[in-house]
Amino acid sequence: MASNNFVPKWYEETAPQQSYRSLFKWGSLSSFKHPNHRLYALMRDTFDLSNAHFEKPGDLGLERVDLEITIQMEAGHVRYFVDLLGEENVKQDVYRRIRASYGKGMIDQLRLRKKIVENLPDLVLWPETTAQIVGIVSYCDENKIPMYVFGGGSTVTRGMEAVQGGVSLDLSQRFNQIIEINEINQTVTVQAGIWGPALEEALNSARQRLGKKENYSCGHFPQSFEFSSVGGWVVTRGAGQNSTYYGKIEDMVLAQEYVTPRGIFKSVPFPRKATGPDLDQLMIGSEGSFGILTEVTLKIFRYHPENRKYFSYMFRNWEDAMAACREVMQSEVGKPSVFRLSDAEETDVAMKLYGVEGTPADTLLQMLGFERNQKCLLLGTSDGSAAYTKMVNRQIRKICRKYKPFDLSLFNVAQRWEKDRFRDPYMREDMVDYGIVIDTLECGVTWEQMPEVHQYVRQFVKSHENTICMTHLSHAYEQGANLYFIFIRKMNAISEYLELQYGILEHIQTSGAAISHHHGVGKQTSPWLEENIGKFRFDLIRAVKNYLDPNQILNPGGTLGLDMSEAQKNKRWSKDLD
Amino acid sequence: MASNNFVPKWYEETAPQQSYRSLFKWGSLSSFKHPNHRLYALMRDTFDLSNAHFEKPGDLGLERVDLEITIQMEAGHVRYFVDLLGEENVKQDVYRRIRASYGKGMIDQLRLRKKIVENLPDLVLWPETTAQIVGIVSYCDENKIPMYVFGGGSTVTRGMEAVQGGVSLDLSQRFNQIIEINEINQTVTVQAGIWGPALEEALNSARQRLGKKENYSCGHFPQSFEFSSVGGWVVTRGAGQNSTYYGKIEDMVLAQEYVTPRGIFKSVPFPRKATGPDLDQLMIGSEGSFGILTEVTLKIFRYHPENRKYFSYMFRNWEDAMAACREVMQSEVGKPSVFRLSDAEETDVAMKLYGVEGTPADTLLQMLGFERNQKCLLLGTSDGSAAYTKMVNRQIRKICRKYKPFDLSLFNVAQRWEKDRFRDPYMREDMVDYGIVIDTLECGVTWEQMPEVHQYVRQFVKSHENTICMTHLSHAYEQGANLYFIFIRKMNAISEYLELQYGILEHIQTSGAAISHHHGVGKQTSPWLEENIGKFRFDLIRAVKNYLDPNQILNPGGTLGLDMSEAQKNKRWSKDLD
Repeated sequence: MASNNFVPKWYEETAPQQSYRSLFKWGSLSSFKHPNHRLYALMRDTFDLSNAHFEKPGDLGLERVDLEITIQMEAGHVRYFVDLLGEENVKQDVYRRIRASYGKGMIDQLRLRKKIVENLPDLVLWPETTAQIVGIVSYCDENKIPMYVFGGGSTVTRGMEAVQGGVSLDLSQRFNQIIEINEINQTVTVQAGIWGPALEEALNSARQRLGKKENYSCGHFPQSFEFSSVGGWVVTRGAGQNSTYYGKIEDMVLAQEYVTPRGIFKSVPFPRKATGPDLDQLMIGSEGSFGILTEVTLKIFRYHPENRKYFSYMFRNWEDAMAACREVMQSEVGKPSVFRLSDAEETDVAMKLYGVEGTPADTLLQMLGFERNQKCLLLGTSDGSAAYTKMVNRQIRKICRKYKPFDLSLFNVAQRWEKDRFRDPYMREDMVDYGIVIDTLECGVTWEQMPEVHQYVRQFVKSHENTICMTHLSHAYEQGANLYFIFIRKMNAISEYLELQYGILEHIQTSGAAISHHHGVGKQTSPWLEENIGKFRFDLIRAVKNYLDPNQILNPGGTLGLDMSEAQKNKRWSKDLD
Repeated sequence: MASNNFVPKWYEETAPQQSYRSLFKWGSLSSFKHPNHRLYALMRDTFDLSNAHFEKPGDLGLERVDLEITIQMEAGHVRYFVDLLGEENVKQDVYRRIRASYGKGMIDQLRLRKKIVENLPDLVLWPETTAQIVGIVSYCDENKIPMYVFGGGSTVTRGMEAVQGGVSLDLSQRFNQIIEINEINQTVTVQAGIWGPALEEALNSARQRLGKKENYSCGHFPQSFEFSSVGGWVVTRGAGQNSTYYGKIEDMVLAQEYVTPRGIFKSVPFPRKATGPDLDQLMIGSEGSFGILTEVTLKIFRYHPENRKYFSYMFRNWEDAMAACREVMQSEVGKPSVFRLSDAEETDVAMKLYGVEGTPADTLLQMLGFERNQKCLLLGTSDGSAAYTKMVNRQIRKICRKYKPFDLSLFNVAQRWEKDRFRDPYMREDMVDYGIVIDTLECGVTWEQMPEVHQYVRQFVKSHENTICMTHLSHAYEQGANLYFIFIRKMNAISEYLELQYGILEHIQTSGAAISHHHGVGKQTSPWLEENIGKFRFDLIRAVKNYLDPNQILNPGGTLGLDMSEAQKNKRWSKDLD
């Protein structure tokens, strides 16, 4: 076995401005997080690599993007947008066009590593007012110009990829204001382009900075929180890591405004009503294909981080752990906020990542017969009033104890997970620098399906030799949960990655799970949507699409499976990427 | 003032079989509940009536329905249905046709009191299988035969009134089975025609009667619980009295099957997903106009009535009481189950109804300065695990105390309300027997709107002299609640009733509230729907309707405002009823 002191040559420089790396890397250009030594050793050994392999990174993508990709759009159209928005709000440079089209999926990174640039909008527009957006939509509809929307850019489903060119509306630039914090209704109304942190910071300090009576929280913290927009949360049906308590985004949205080619959809923030079908729920998850989301009114919650309580338990096996989780969710003892159960393989990795491996706690666990490849880690938090979180944590402890777990709460495992929770994605770049691909797919399951879906999909991933497959349950409900599959593998070609990714989607589909719980469908998962929801419901989506967007200008190119290319239909990439 | 010993000649006989009374009276034919003496005295005095007035009831509707109303349907069509379902499942008698078309709204009762029989289906069908329902829908679509559905018959919005004749499917007869109780997912799947009590009883005794591991509850108890079907709950977006904890029906539905002219809508019971728009929420609340609901999968809850806790507080005024209720809902202390705040006028009536008036508690309240026409009663329950209900009740007490209410919990006010909660509607018949009309309209509001909506609508009702107007808040949320308006008035003509009812709807509309929170729209509230949700969303509903039901055979005649007559459009009844 290789030396324990070796440290790979991780890249630690700020990604150069205007470089490919600046486009594909996660988050801030100067930030990174390296796999710790234990995780590194695991990868090196699993993939049969030597330390030497980690001395010479592959293509780091440091080159400046200096492509010339001429725009296809008629000059008259460009003029229209310049007249409407001003020269400074109509961007034509290739770098910004890539940024508006490529997300943070592994396929985006792999393409950009190889300098494969495709599917760019002709223009990136920075509208500032709803009236301008109405103007853009009308003009595009009249002239059949494809429209895409950029919010935070963290899609992992090719959600905003401008497959048919046209314009991309970057709402994050000038369409990102808080319109109202309503303390009586406990709601916030925002423009769709606002990013998570800007909203959360304003809410957290509403008393001090905005003269409000209370401080608030939006309660929505997806993995991509720091680089995601409220609009993106809504149109994809996203979920935050604390959704078990706060709900998914569709549980938080009270009212919305969309500009569609057919007119303006606008609803009123009633908590509930019985005035026919719920059309807000029809628009949420429409992924930019029914209209341009402009305004959202969300529930907000009182901000009392001091009430947060943590817990973590190690179970002897997956079956016990799942049973305990189900019992927690069905016992009506209130709801935890983060609720995250790792399967055995992920638990072993988590022990490395959250600093448990090698500690006295680890030794104790081994002595008590908690076995590697068997034991499963549950970690979580409770949010709400002090009385509520105290009660919830106590009841969770009571339920878990029936399964004789090891109570790790004293070891601050959940706290350590939380502290770094938005930083883990930075490890992706380190890995891909050395040809190691990591990706995540997720699905919605009922409790009844969970064991089978887990086993079936995992089996497929593990049928690829030398592959790490970690799974966790998160976002739990009385009736089921989300299952996350993370695979890590040394790969030599994009086609190899796609084969594995498509295979997982195929297996999720065959397993009977919902093909996505919160990433959405985009243009990546779209080939599975019709099978997943059935032809009748698929056709119903299409009927609504045809009504709202008769000229098919909104997010065209396969979004929600609506206008897929032949390649997409056949579950293949459109061209050779290797 | 009239003597205190007088007892009106309330009707106490079993309503004769096949009589008009048997059609319009609430509930079991032999049951009744009389207004108690205090309520009686209030009405008598408010309406300037004498005891003598209550010695001679008006038309009791005891006559047998012996109308001949020939059916308009071609003989060939009748033959088709007889062949499909069997002679015994195709009903042509007038009595059954009225029963299938008239609901339990006051307008239904007033018409039947006057023997005004209109809008009957030609046939009442009793399908037993989904295949038969598919056959019926196909045939009706092909032959443009209007279709209506009868579930429990307790609509108060003319929901199932067969305005255009055709067939009415009575699903309560042979399409009322529990298909599966899934204990792992904690769900129940039922045929749409099953009634609340049949479902609840099976769930409550699942261990004993069905060999399940636990007993369950559906958690859904609308006022009409005893005479309502699960299908009716779903298609109207109904709410139970315990909805503050258990949720409205749209929070409980996990999957559905509808037979539409376009094919079969069928969804899978995932707790949440991100596979495009939520089409289940598009179908819920479609009120029979998008398809025939056949199967529903609902959340169920563990049945532990022993954990239920009660509370009741008397506040000094409506403002304090509303503030306390809002604080309870927004403080993240868990949620009460029943949560019902009466305004001052309703409180005064409640004191009579629930036996507080005249007791030492009442005297004490007066001594403490809780004033008539000012004080407001909050009553409620908590459901869930023992730890949860204990915590919730304690926290509610803590919050309420800030407003210095009188704690009535020891006086069992909530328990008394609960005990009789399904019996109150029986009083309607006693009142109408003496020309006193009682009716209820309700709407959804945000907390911010609540004071104004309450005042504005109430003012309108009270502008009619000698009118009792009681309001309560129930079904509460972090962002708002439901407001119920109950009016009681002596009336001489149906037109007088309609003028008041339409006026209230008009005022709810103008106030900015959601025109219904859980009664639905039906054919009664439909003239206000387009204004209430706006033309864009209204047209979107129409577009979906046109796609799913291109021949407009499903619940035609104004449902959801889709194909209103000229009279409906002008917010008028179609003909003179007096």
